[in-house]
This record gives sequence, structure tokens and C-alpha cells, in this order.
Amino acid sequence: MNNQNHNGGDPKRKRYVIHRAKGKNQKPVKKAAPPAHLHNQTPVRQPVQAPRRPHEQHRTPVRIIPLGGLNEIGKNMTVFECSNDMFILDCGLAFPDAEMPGVDIVIPDFTYVERNKDKLRGIVITHGHEDHIGGLAYLLKKVNAPVYGSSMTIGLIKHKLEEHGLLNKVSLNVIESRKTVKMGCMAVEFIKVNHSIPGSMGMAIHTPAGVLVHTGDFKVDYTPIDGGPIDLARFGELGSRGVLALMADSTNAERPGYTQSERKVGDSFEKLFVKAGNRRIIIATFSSNIHRVQQIVNMAAKNGRKIAVLGRSMINVITTALELGYLDVPKNTIIDIENMNQYPPEQIVLITTGSQGEPMSALTRMAMHDHKKVNITPMDFIIISATPIPGNEKHVTKVVNELLKSGAEVIYESMYEVHVSGHACQEELKLMLALVKPKFYIPMHGEYKHLVKAKGLAMEMGIPKENILLASIGNVIETDGSKLQIVSQAPAGRVLVDGLGVGDVGSIVLRDRKHLAEDGLIIIVVGINRASGEVVSGPDIISRGFVYVREAEELMEKAKQLLCHTLAECSVYELKEWTPLKAKLRDALSDYIFEQTKRSPMILPIIMEV
Amino acid sequence: MNNQNHNGGDPKRKRYVIHRAKGKNQKPVKKAAPPAHLHNQTPVRQPVQAPRRPHEQHRTPVRIIPLGGLNEIGKNMTVFECSNDMFILDCGLAFPDAEMPGVDIVIPDFTYVERNKDKLRGIVITHGHEDHIGGLAYLLKKVNAPVYGSSMTIGLIKHKLEEHGLLNKVSLNVIESRKTVKMGCMAVEFIKVNHSIPGSMGMAIHTPAGVLVHTGDFKVDYTPIDGGPIDLARFGELGSRGVLALMADSTNAERPGYTQSERKVGDSFEKLFVKAGNRRIIIATFSSNIHRVQQIVNMAAKNGRKIAVLGRSMINVITTALELGYLDVPKNTIIDIENMNQYPPEQIVLITTGSQGEPMSALTRMAMHDHKKVNITPMDFIIISATPIPGNEKHVTKVVNELLKSGAEVIYESMYEVHVSGHACQEELKLMLALVKPKFYIPMHGEYKHLVKAKGLAMEMGIPKENILLASIGNVIETDGSKLQIVSQAPAGRVLVDGLGVGDVGSIVLRDRKHLAEDGLIIIVVGINRASGEVVSGPDIISRGFVYVREAEELMEKAKQLLCHTLAECSVYELKEWTPLKAKLRDALSDYIFEQTKRSPMILPIIMEV
Repeated sequence: MNNQNHNGGDPKRKRYVIHRAKGKNQKPVKKAAPPAHLHNQTPVRQPVQAPRRPHEQHRTPVRIIPLGGLNEIGKNMTVFECSNDMFILDCGLAFPDAEMPGVDIVIPDFTYVERNKDKLRGIVITHGHEDHIGGLAYLLKKVNAPVYGSSMTIGLIKHKLEEHGLLNKVSLNVIESRKTVKMGCMAVEFIKVNHSIPGSMGMAIHTPAGVLVHTGDFKVDYTPIDGGPIDLARFGELGSRGVLALMADSTNAERPGYTQSERKVGDSFEKLFVKAGNRRIIIATFSSNIHRVQQIVNMAAKNGRKIAVLGRSMINVITTALELGYLDVPKNTIIDIENMNQYPPEQIVLITTGSQGEPMSALTRMAMHDHKKVNITPMDFIIISATPIPGNEKHVTKVVNELLKSGAEVIYESMYEVHVSGHACQEELKLMLALVKPKFYIPMHGEYKHLVKAKGLAMEMGIPKENILLASIGNVIETDGSKLQIVSQAPAGRVLVDGLGVGDVGSIVLRDRKHLAEDGLIIIVVGINRASGEVVSGPDIISRGFVYVREAEELMEKAKQLLCHTLAECSVYELKEWTPLKAKLRDALSDYIFEQTKRSPMILPIIMEV
Repeated sequence: MNNQNHNGGDPKRKRYVIHRAKGKNQKPVKKAAPPAHLHNQTPVRQPVQAPRRPHEQHRTPVRIIPLGGLNEIGKNMTVFECSNDMFILDCGLAFPDAEMPGVDIVIPDFTYVERNKDKLRGIVITHGHEDHIGGLAYLLKKVNAPVYGSSMTIGLIKHKLEEHGLLNKVSLNVIESRKTVKMGCMAVEFIKVNHSIPGSMGMAIHTPAGVLVHTGDFKVDYTPIDGGPIDLARFGELGSRGVLALMADSTNAERPGYTQSERKVGDSFEKLFVKAGNRRIIIATFSSNIHRVQQIVNMAAKNGRKIAVLGRSMINVITTALELGYLDVPKNTIIDIENMNQYPPEQIVLITTGSQGEPMSALTRMAMHDHKKVNITPMDFIIISATPIPGNEKHVTKVVNELLKSGAEVIYESMYEVHVSGHACQEELKLMLALVKPKFYIPMHGEYKHLVKAKGLAMEMGIPKENILLASIGNVIETDGSKLQIVSQAPAGRVLVDGLGVGDVGSIVLRDRKHLAEDGLIIIVVGINRASGEVVSGPDIISRGFVYVREAEELMEKAKQLLCHTLAECSVYELKEWTPLKAKLRDALSDYIFEQTKRSPMILPIIMEV
């Protein structure tokens, strides 16, 4: 990552480099200070103006430490550090995969933040999706710092903190687009982007070493439902003045072209409301996609249908959006679900959660005839306004099948374009690169394959290969404005949350859960008088998840006989040494069971002192 | 399902109906008898010629009993029954889903066949995929009957039966396209179709009630790699003479248009072999896709590359295909994997299994640096010539990520069209319907949503709604040529195979496995003298998959104290009645653990008589 390499053959790149070099002597761009009341609980520190000494070759280095969101989709979190100041950008959760049975959520390892909590000046949040805010409550139980975000983001965070009993302990601050928050010697500027939730922001991080741009999750929507397009002008302005490094959303880096406008979904709804005719319309979508909900509301109002809402998260988000003015609903349009049956089907739109086929969601319960308030009939026209997230395909298919079996018509997946992505495709990433013209590029927010694709795109755009960093979580990435490199490693990883337990389910517990799930368990119980070395009771065998014992009586009886025999062959000495005795019983039974069944259940010998 | 309804407004349909009515008086089509040696082990029975009495209104009814493959992708099996004769079409397996941990494979419930085994005349197999042959060995352990299939299908079945020690106990018979096998009063005619494995057949089932057509798995490929296109002429001929019912593959019924020709993949390989340059080429694909393998072989020969083969099933299938002449490989092209390193990378193509990211497959082990013979480097160019089957997406992504991390270039999913489906899309289904012109239509081979789509297509083609049956496994569907209806229910379902156990893992075992996987286990052990009602030892607590005990000592200690307290409060009478005592201990601990952790581990109280 040497600066020399940057002066490649491309004349455009060369000019850009010269511009960057001049930049060292320019005065730092004066940012509009955020209104005082917005950060009055921030420790007020005089920002270290950069560059302080124009004759100095190397500027104060800034460190970027991703603690999540790299080589994974989920638990996005990045630490920025400079001199004695540190702030955090996003603090999300990830959902557990099939290798983590019983786990509720996965959050980043906060060790590095805890160790450096004296430096922590604040937490900025790009937007209110779970993979950006879902870890925040857990972090705030360990360290306290003011939180900054758009009004929608802060509204959603409020709900979360309330659930965790943290609401009055944390300073929450609303920041508007183009406003800046000081974080010690750094300053974070919020820049509006488009995404599948209102109030999404990218960030320009002004540091002594240079400007870093973090896009957050973004797409380019020229015709969004509300709030106008992404602030391309500001990204371009920053690019013209010189951006040291760009960190950009790589989720859709594999997809060519442009992501379609949210308005496209409205066009589909227009047709589908006609197709639904006199049937009840049920639409499942992501609760956070308020623009989608707005389009449903508009269509309902236009067609004289009332709206009922189901699903806890849907009700929460709609309530927040209404309060904050992100959602505009004509009077008397939303009705209580209890009153739904007072209207004929053609006067109802039911908005619900469950677009991912989540087992406990409202839509799944409707599909399984397990919902108290909604019964699916051939008079239902159901739209699943989402595409399955990888891993959820089978759940969604199951829900679709069951809804169809009840005679309903179901619109799902790519039929009728009832969903568009919230993430930038290849051409949008190129647009961002063309505007920001970064010296260094760190693809973020993606699996490794997405990061590799993003790297390829940046290389096509003329960024030298050696200026693109495919980082991993825990990498301490340092840049002084001329070089950017990994200098060390911080603790990073995943912390599993199961019920109230945070981190008490680790690899050993997961290994045992997996073993128990695949092969079940046999318990051997023996009572021994250790003094005399005499078997006083048992051996008894108990199994769970292994075979249906009533149909395997012979096997279990023979296994018991084998254990009796094994014990009978033991010397008195052996019967007094329980660790080797347990191993002996386990091995004998394990061999026998494998020979008879080709299975390897977990075998737990328990010897009771009597 | 009344015939009257069939005389709808469409004049074409009307003509067709008249034609069908005339058909009753036509002589049955004389089929070319299969060569005697091909079925010399079949019980030779005089076929009952249909229709026997032209003046009779109702013909001898035929019964169609699907035992798998409906409302699911997998374990395809259908029973056909007429008078005292019965035969089986296909006997496949399904792969377990996330709800069946530890289960190896899923096979159909054979109860109905076992109960009627005296009637069983034979088993016909459409093609050699696991979901059509994978249950056969298990069936043949319960009932014996001659098996009929194309030479490729029989070759693959041989391998399977050998593994199960059944090879010399079963009569295996090769049947060519347009040849017929008699099954008592019925006769089964084999008709060539295109699919992703050579030797795939559809079947025309000639019965006293009329002709039934079963497509098997099919697509329409006008430019297949070998053996020519599907025998559309024969399907058309049957259609012209009158087909009572069509059973067709619905897998791709959701997809508009046509499935592309297998040759398309060859075009992509052509470009990719150039792109690979001097790197080693590794291609992962389905082992059974011999036409895919043939195209790889052709490209390798053209580019002067040797071929090495990895993966047990790939080696098996290639061996069988070579023996039977389904695969044509120039001399000295295939080399032993052990000799691979004697050649430079640009002279090697490695064909391997693992295109679905299966955890134990060769490609996955390469990706995880866990393969003894292959080490992935930046000198590897890897093509995953397959799309992930629903449910495997995350596995495939993991493998791609890891291969990329080793510096290899990886071509996957829809990039460069390196895979085409083996199943008919909507236009091909319409073509089949147009050729066969069935009176009744039973969509097969699909989830419910696929069957619904297939029904929609058939209705568009003019088949009356009431003549289309969306059936379920176990339905006994009866038709006498004029009506087709479900008349009763046969035992049907899924039988789980885990190791050597067939059917001994049922719903209780699965429920326990799921519980153990999600919440782990706590065992309570107490020794009690039942005579005196005295606690002699314990209570002790052992847990697995619950918490990491070393970090939860306090919790476990308090739980133990609670149990001591519970026991101490018991009367002597309570200590003698162990069933209620166990419940009491379980409830006390369960409440405490849930309160402390919000988790519900399985709790197993074990009381030892001392």
C-alpha cells in the first residue's frame, strides 16, 4: 500500500494524485457545526485541526477497525480511532445460521471497545436496520456514549433501549443530513443516501489524516417515495476536494446494472390491486420498509380499502414512522385488527410481517391455520413483497405452499416485481467511486465473494490493485494519508446471545448441541460403593433423540447386558478409579452401538457414589 | 371430475372429446414386444386386452397411487394398479431438511406395496437420479420384483444394489425407448426424453381404462449432447390416439419460456477455457450429468489438457458411463489423480463433486484446505457448473468464499451460463400438453406451488379445471376412462433412514433432537433408598449443550441448592413415589433456569434405587 504505486500510467489518476498532494496545504474544509442542543451531552473537545504543520510529511494517523460486517452479511460495526479519540459507526446484530442451534442473535465482540472506553466519544448510526442497530443495547450495557442518527434511526433505537431498560441512561441525538458531529480530533458529517428504510445516511469522516467516506447501506434512487434522492452532489464535492479512503456497501456487488427504484413496486401494486378484485388483500413485507408501507397506504386510500396491521415489529415501526412524520396516512384509514371482520374483503388491506417465512411470524401462523384473528380463504389475495434472504428460501416456500392450499392466490418472489433491493448494484457502485474518487478503497458489508467483486469493479475504475484492501474483522487498518495498511490485530469475533445469556454459549456448547441433534444421547447410570468397589445399583440406560425405545427394546437390553458384562470384568481396583472406568463404559457401549446402528450418540456415563 | 363437464365451449376440445369416445372401439395399439431376453425373469402373463367388451360402458378401472413426489421435490414413487396387477414407477429418496437432524436419507412408506406384494409385477424406473432410484434397495429388501430401465439407469442401480448386497437377488432388465414391458393387464412403454442424465425415459402406460402418460423428469433439448431430442413424435402419436391422463414433471412450472440446451454450457466452457489461460481448471458438477462431463472431456481434449477425477460418486458414474458407452473419452486423456502433479497447471482439468457445497464433498474439502491431494492456489480457475438447490445456498457461498480466499478465480451461479436446468419450463410443459392432449391432468414432481402453476398452464391450454387433479401422496386415484377421482387413502409418508436404522427415528426422536439442539440438557441424578424414603446420594447436576459450566458455576451451584431444598421439603411418602417426584424436581429446576436464563433445556431427572 505504498503511495509510489499510486502514480500509475493513467493520466487522470496522476492529476488526481497531484490534487491530493496539494490538499495537504489547503485549509481544512469548514463544516457547518451541528446545533449545540444536538450534542450537548458530548464531551466538548477542541478538534485537532489537520494538517497542523504543513511542512510535516506524515499526518496524525487514523485507525479503522472493523469489528463486524466483513466476510459476512450482518453485525456491522466499525471503530475509528485517532490520537486519543475513538468513535463507533453502527453496532448491528447477525442472525444465527444452522450451525448455531438455539442461538437468538449474534453480536460483535466488544472487547476492543471496552479496553479503550476512555477514548470513546460517541456512536454514529447510519440507519435503523437490525444489522446496524441490533447490538447497540448490548454495547451500551458495557460502555456509555452518546448516540447519533437520523430521527427515524433514533426513533427505532429508542424502542430497543426501552426494551432493555436503558432509555434514560443514554444520550440520543438526532442529526440531519449535511450536519456534523465532533468526535474529538475527528468530525463525522451525515450525508443522505437512499436505502430500504427512511433516514439512511452515509458518513464523511474528517480526520487529521484526510477524509474517509463510509456509504452505509445505500442505493441510488432518483424517484424515491420520500425525501429525495441520495445527496450525490455532496459525495462529488468531497471527491473533488480529495477523499483518502472509501468504505462502500458491497451487498449487491455481484449484480450488474442498477437497482430499480422503490416506485417500481408501486406500479406493480397498482396492477395487483385491480387483479385482487373483490378479495381481501394481504401484503407481507419488511416492517422497516416504510416507503413500501407508504405505497400500500396510498393504494389502499385510492381503492377505498381500510388498513389493518399485524405483527409486533410492523406495529412498532409504523407507530414510530407516524410519530416522526415519515409516514403519511389519511385519517380513518388504519383500523383495529379486531374490527377487520366488520368490513367486506374488498374493503381491506392487511399489512403484516412474515415475508421471510419466519416460523413465529403473523403470515406463517396464518398459513398454518394457527392465527387467532385471520383465517385464510379463497377470498384472500396475498402479496409477499420481498425476496427470500439466503437461507430463508425453504421457509418462504413452505408458507407459500400452505397459503395456496387454503385456496388463496399468492404473489411471491420475482412475479410482478413486488420487491426491489435496497443496495447498490454494480453501476451504482461505479457512480459512487466516480464521485468520491478515493485514493484507497475498502469494500465493506459483504461476504468475501462480494468484496472480491467490489474490488474488481474498483480496479476497472482505475484504482490500483494495491490501493484496495480486502480486510477482515479485527484488522487494525492505519493510514497517515499516504499509506494505508493493516498494522495489528484487535480482538474480534462473534458473541452468541441465547435468552438472557450473552456469550455463555461458545464453541463447546455448540459442538455438544450439534452432536445431540444429529445422534442423540445415551446416559449410563451406575451406583458404586467406592470404598468396597462394589456395584450397588444399575447399570441403567436412558436415551433421548437416539431411537424410539419401545421399538428398540432388544437393542437397549443387549446394550445393558454388555455394560453389566463390562462391569463384571472390572477388578475392584478399576471400580474405584472412576475416570478410566467411565471411559471404559463409554467405549464399550459406543463400539457396540456403532456396530449395530452405524450411529454415534453422545454417551454420558454417570457413576453415583453410594 | 365428471365427463359431462368436459364438453366445454371450446370447439377444439369438443372435437377431441368425440375422438376419445370413438377410441373405445378402436383396436388397441400393438406395441413392439421387448426382446425376450430382456424380461425373461418377469412372470409371463397374458395381457388383458382393453377394451374387452366394446358395448360395456365402464372399463376396468385403473388406480394411480402416488407414494412420493407430490408436494415435495424428492422420493418419487407411484403405484399403478389394475385388477390383480400392480407395478411401481420409480422409487426415489429425498434428502433430509433442517427439521431432521442426523437423518441420512428419507424414503417413501412402503406399507401399501408390502400389503399388496402378491400383485406386484415389476418396477419401472424413468432415470438414474437419486430421487428416482435411491429408495429402491430399501424396497427390494421388503418385496422382490424385476426392475426395468434404460442401460444407464440399470447400470447405476447395479452399483446401489451391490452396496446393499442385493445384486444377485434381483432381476435387472434393460429396456430401450419405444419398447414395452407387460405388467399383467397393463403394459408400460418406454419413451425417450431429455434430462440432465442420459437414458431418461417417459412412460406410456397402456391399461384397460386407457393410456396414461408419465413424463418422468424431462426437458425438450433439440441439440442435446448425445442420443438426440426427446421423442416428441411418439408423445404426439399417443395424443392423437387418445390419452386418458397425463402426469408431468412440474419442477420448473414457475419459470416462463424454455429451458436452454445443454449445448449452451459447452459454449460457455469454450470461452472459460481461454480465460483460464495457463491455470489449472477445476470443474465441479453433478456426477450424474454425463453430458456435462462429456462437454468437459471434449474441451479438455481440444485444449490438450489431461483429466483427473475426484469424488466417489463422480468416479462411480463416469466408470458406469464409460462401460456402457454413454461417455466417449479419447485414449490417455484421463489420468490418475496421484499423477496430477506431474503435469503443469495448464495441462490439467480436474472434475469433481461438491457443486452443492456438501460438507464432505471433494470441493468443500479443497476449499477448507482439508484435501490430501489438491491444494488450491492462485493458479486455479474453478467453475461451479450448477446452481444451488434450494436450501444449499449458504453451503455453496461458504465454499466460494473460501476458494476465493486461496486466491483462485471462481465462476459460480449464473455467471457465464455454466449450468442449465434439466426440467421443462412453461413453454415445454405447454408443448407436452399440446402433443399428448390428455383428458385428465395430474401435475407431478413438485411442491404444491409448482403443482398449482402447472394447473394454471393446463387451464390456459383448455383443459377444464375439474379435469385437473392436484393430488397428495397416499391418494388412491381411480379412473375407468370416463371419470378420474380420489376414491380412498393408502398409507403414505416418510420413513427416515439414520445409519442402519430404517424408520426407527420418528417424530418423538426428532422432537427430542430438536429440543436438545436448541436448548441443551440438564441431568439431575439422585440416589434414594425407596424402602426408607431416604436420599442416599446427590442430587447432582450434569449439563451438556446448555452453558459452558466453568463460566456458569454460580448458576449451577444455585440450581443444585434449589434441588436439595426441594428434596428436603419432600415427605417420606413423596420420596417413595418417583414419577411425581421426578416431575416435581423437573418443574422446580425448569422454572429456576428459565427465570435466570430465559432458556428451557431438556431436564432429565434420574432417580437411582439404592
